[in-house]
Amino acid sequence: MANSKYEYVKNFELPDPLLPGTFLLFRLDGHSFHRFSAEHNFEKPNDVRALQLMDHAARDVMEEYPDIVLAFGESDEYSFLLKKSTSLYNRRQSKIVSTLTSYFTSCYVFRWATYFPDKPLEYPPSFDGRIVVYPGEREIRDYFAWRQADTHINNLYNTTFWALVQQGGQTTTEAHATLRGTYSKDKHEILFSRFKINYNQLDPRFRKGTILVREEEPEPTPAIEQVASAIENTATPSSECEQPATSPDSAKSKKQKKRAVKAKPRTRVVVIHTDIIRDEFWSARPNILVE
Amino acid sequence: MANSKYEYVKNFELPDPLLPGTFLLFRLDGHSFHRFSAEHNFEKPNDVRALQLMDHAARDVMEEYPDIVLAFGESDEYSFLLKKSTSLYNRRQSKIVSTLTSYFTSCYVFRWATYFPDKPLEYPPSFDGRIVVYPGEREIRDYFAWRQADTHINNLYNTTFWALVQQGGQTTTEAHATLRGTYSKDKHEILFSRFKINYNQLDPRFRKGTILVREEEPEPTPAIEQVASAIENTATPSSECEQPATSPDSAKSKKQKKRAVKAKPRTRVVVIHTDIIRDEFWSARPNILVE
Amino acid sequence: MANSKYEYVKNFELPDPLLPGTFLLFRLDGHSFHRFSAEHNFEKPNDVRALQLMDHAARDVMEEYPDIVLAFGESDEYSFLLKKSTSLYNRRQSKIVSTLTSYFTSCYVFRWATYFPDKPLEYPPSFDGRIVVYPGEREIRDYFAWRQADTHINNLYNTTFWALVQQGGQTTTEAHATLRGTYSKDKHEILFSRFKINYNQLDPRFRKGTILVREEEPEPTPAIEQVASAIENTATPSSECEQPATSPDSAKSKKQKKRAVKAKPRTRVVVIHTDIIRDEFWSARPNILVE
Amino acid sequence: MANSKYEYVKNFELPDPLLPGTFLLFRLDGHSFHRFSAEHNFEKPNDVRALQLMDHAARDVMEEYPDIVLAFGESDEYSFLLKKSTSLYNRRQSKIVSTLTSYFTSCYVFRWATYFPDKPLEYPPSFDGRIVVYPGEREIRDYFAWRQADTHINNLYNTTFWALVQQGGQTTTEAHATLRGTYSKDKHEILFSRFKINYNQLDPRFRKGTILVREEEPEPTPAIEQVASAIENTATPSSECEQPATSPDSAKSKKQKKRAVKAKPRTRVVVIHTDIIRDEFWSARPNILVE
Repeated sequence: MANSKYEYVKNFELPDPLLPGTFLLFRLDGHSFHRFSAEHNFEKPNDVRALQLMDHAARDVMEEYPDIVLAFGESDEYSFLLKKSTSLYNRRQSKIVSTLTSYFTSCYVFRWATYFPDKPLEYPPSFDGRIVVYPGEREIRDYFAWRQADTHINNLYNTTFWALVQQGGQTTTEAHATLRGTYSKDKHEILFSRFKINYNQLDPRFRKGTILVREEEPEPTPAIEQVASAIENTATPSSECEQPATSPDSAKSKKQKKRAVKAKPRTRVVVIHTDIIRDEFWSARPNILVE
Repeated sequence: MANSKYEYVKNFELPDPLLPGTFLLFRLDGHSFHRFSAEHNFEKPNDVRALQLMDHAARDVMEEYPDIVLAFGESDEYSFLLKKSTSLYNRRQSKIVSTLTSYFTSCYVFRWATYFPDKPLEYPPSFDGRIVVYPGEREIRDYFAWRQADTHINNLYNTTFWALVQQGGQTTTEAHATLRGTYSKDKHEILFSRFKINYNQLDPRFRKGTILVREEEPEPTPAIEQVASAIENTATPSSECEQPATSPDSAKSKKQKKRAVKAKPRTRVVVIHTDIIRDEFWSARPNILVE
Repeated sequence: MANSKYEYVKNFELPDPLLPGTFLLFRLDGHSFHRFSAEHNFEKPNDVRALQLMDHAARDVMEEYPDIVLAFGESDEYSFLLKKSTSLYNRRQSKIVSTLTSYFTSCYVFRWATYFPDKPLEYPPSFDGRIVVYPGEREIRDYFAWRQADTHINNLYNTTFWALVQQGGQTTTEAHATLRGTYSKDKHEILFSRFKINYNQLDPRFRKGTILVREEEPEPTPAIEQVASAIENTATPSSECEQPATSPDSAKSKKQKKRAVKAKPRTRVVVIHTDIIRDEFWSARPNILVE
Repeated sequence: MANSKYEYVKNFELPDPLLPGTFLLFRLDGHSFHRFSAEHNFEKPNDVRALQLMDHAARDVMEEYPDIVLAFGESDEYSFLLKKSTSLYNRRQSKIVSTLTSYFTSCYVFRWATYFPDKPLEYPPSFDGRIVVYPGEREIRDYFAWRQADTHINNLYNTTFWALVQQGGQTTTEAHATLRGTYSKDKHEILFSRFKINYNQLDPRFRKGTILVREEEPEPTPAIEQVASAIENTATPSSECEQPATSPDSAKSKKQKKRAVKAKPRTRVVVIHTDIIRDEFWSARPNILVE
């Protein structure tokens, strides 16, 4: 049963390298998450456990792939920036897009019980991924501005909508009607005057989304502590705890841990919820765009 | 915070449609599964639970995506054939490759505990995927012949190798040396004369890999039973039970089940371990290649 | 002035192989030929010299590239079929599309004076080209049927339109108005009743377009005569002479001629104007689609 | 003969847009020009008429396509830089590459007799083209540096080689042997000591290649003169006349001329032979890289 006469079928695998010298932006979206969030009773307008689970899976991805220098998440989507010079999988498109999507998905399912201990997964969720190639720094900044502006717009709408429904007693149809044609300031006004909600004091996680960056370690510490301490405790109104119940590193083999310590002893992935549109974020972290 | 000035970044998403009128072959491989199988103590040369888990995840994929007409699995890889006329996700490459890889991965992790109840996942496994476009029926037949011939060659080698090690007391280095330069018939001879193993009577799952096909239902039955009965009980030497511990449909929502019954009431996914190289398989199932 | 430090820029040249095992259809269109035909006073509705020049350039291309098995031309466009197994330029898309377009263009300008001896080129004409990949024989037959049906529709319209203008004394605006909403049979009727033109007896070149095929030579003859005799003298109403004024081979070097005789001694490119939609054409030439 | 049932074949034409926001580098090479130059007795090591013809065709291309901001030619190749923001043909790859290659070829054949009045074209020459996408300014500078360094290396070798043959009486085999293992300074020394040739005083066209740039017009002048005056008379040892025998604009229609005057009244294409590797060239022309 010689195999050589069939091997010509390999010739149909065509090369798919992505252009060198460009930023690779990998974006991932929940597949049918409208239904998924309904089946799993996600809280409205934001379910903090679901968001934390997304963030944890994203952090796993970023720790596994050192060429990712920045990530941004909101709702059921996440964007990852691979540095310009990355040669991950020789920049083969299908390989990168499938592997990163697979690993994120795997982490999401793997860590589900940590964030939803009393709510078993009803069925396997999935995500789709894509890579967008950006030639310059301007486009990268505008990409992330686009996602964060989108976060703001969606969250302000959803927050007001669900306040009208949950606290205001409106039906969803009525709430949509109430909001039709309103501007930002109108929604702020509705929230404040009717429900005593100061939008700007809500959890920045909801208003800004989640940003993951690498930070240099001040001093060499054992790997296991590095990652644990990487979880930033931002003083948010909801005083959420970003530390996952299990050590984020528990999924790593010993060999991997040792390698991590040796290869990149001084950086850790940090979770923040801040403005990514203005210059401050970028001028404080010049290494993201310029290697 | 208007979003419109940033939206130009969407223009960098380039279209990636796959050629119409061609077979789409989606192949998926375990990522670093050498290490994964070692960390999870998979049995050598074949771990039947691990293979059944692969098969289950593959069946999930095939049930979710009706345009898949055939699948073949061996070891930590699976190949899925999408029919020529499929318009799944408008044949967008990244969308298909990422979604199918994600869903398979999700099912694999989701069902892990069913097959390894006493062995928790150490860390999240991942897979990579790719799509190969094939223009004709000949190439499709040769593709699957290529994979099954590969299964045979690898399994005969591994079976003999591990017999030498586990039963013959050789070190792995010695076993490799013993097998260097041997032909198929030599390995058959070693197995039979030294270990009383008749290779051709080993579980066909190991020798042939797993084939998933759709079969017409003889009569309309409730969806839940359809799928349950879809598990073929082939009389194999190991008399393995292919029925997973949990109902294979348990992951589906009620809505999905209802839709499934209505949309495709008469087919079920069937698991077989048979020869896919000779004509018999294909002439018995003309609908796989010709719609 | 070492060059090595700049050579990295070569890495930005990405591979662009076309799928193996598929028909490659190369189509070429005149660029701004509306203006070009006006500036060079092409006769309406058809300029036989301009069409013959197109045909000659196409024949040059077909003689230069033996993997082209069929060509079809109408107006200022030409389609060339490369056989399924072609490995021309390793199937690199840009290489094929640019070289074939360039060579056609070069032949067109080079041979201009032969067909327009009293009308010098006013400026350099250009063409654009593209390659379409077709997986099967059905699509190839339908592609050529599509082009010939298009030829028919356009030519019937144009013939009637210009009869109304040139012989009927209508303005172009009036002629368009006369034809608005008419069917084929109406146009036939206008031509016959008003202008005594039996459309079906017009030069088949205009009604059917031009087809180029390869035919086996009955006996070995010197190359120079082979090509000369390849020009089919179809008995058309216009009794056009398809033989170009200069020998079609005069552009070939001696070395090329010698090679041509040796490499493919028994085929010649033949010009015909016949139906390509029905089965007859294809069943008489099975080698076009099946190698 | 309805066409609608065949039109589905159009769906096989896949989109091929090039990444936005990147420089498009279009390079063109003579196809089998070794043979072409031999058949047409091009002078060795450089045929100034052949080079001028290349330059003229390139200038035609640059005048026809205003988005080309820079061109560089040597021997039988030419490189054209399309500005980052170009939306020429919606950045469709095949359309750009085929049309530019076609137009260059057409101009080359069209203008042949101007430069070779006593030497008719033996057969139609052709060129191949490709587009390389570059994300940044650094790569563009290095690309052109790469081509000019290549020009230098080739020309120094060829000049010395042909001096040894033509003036030194060596066979070509002997000349290659003489040059084996030599460095630049050795070749300079051979040229000077044996043949009294000061390499650095040879025509910069040969040593530097040809650069085409756009320059602003100091004052509005009629289009016909603009272009004529665009030909730079560099004081070169060979005192070549760069002005073509026919007005370079003669190929343009009246309508085109009028449009040219209106749309881009203040730039003209200028031919220079200077260093493109050092900063001076680029700092004097900041608009090439930054719009």
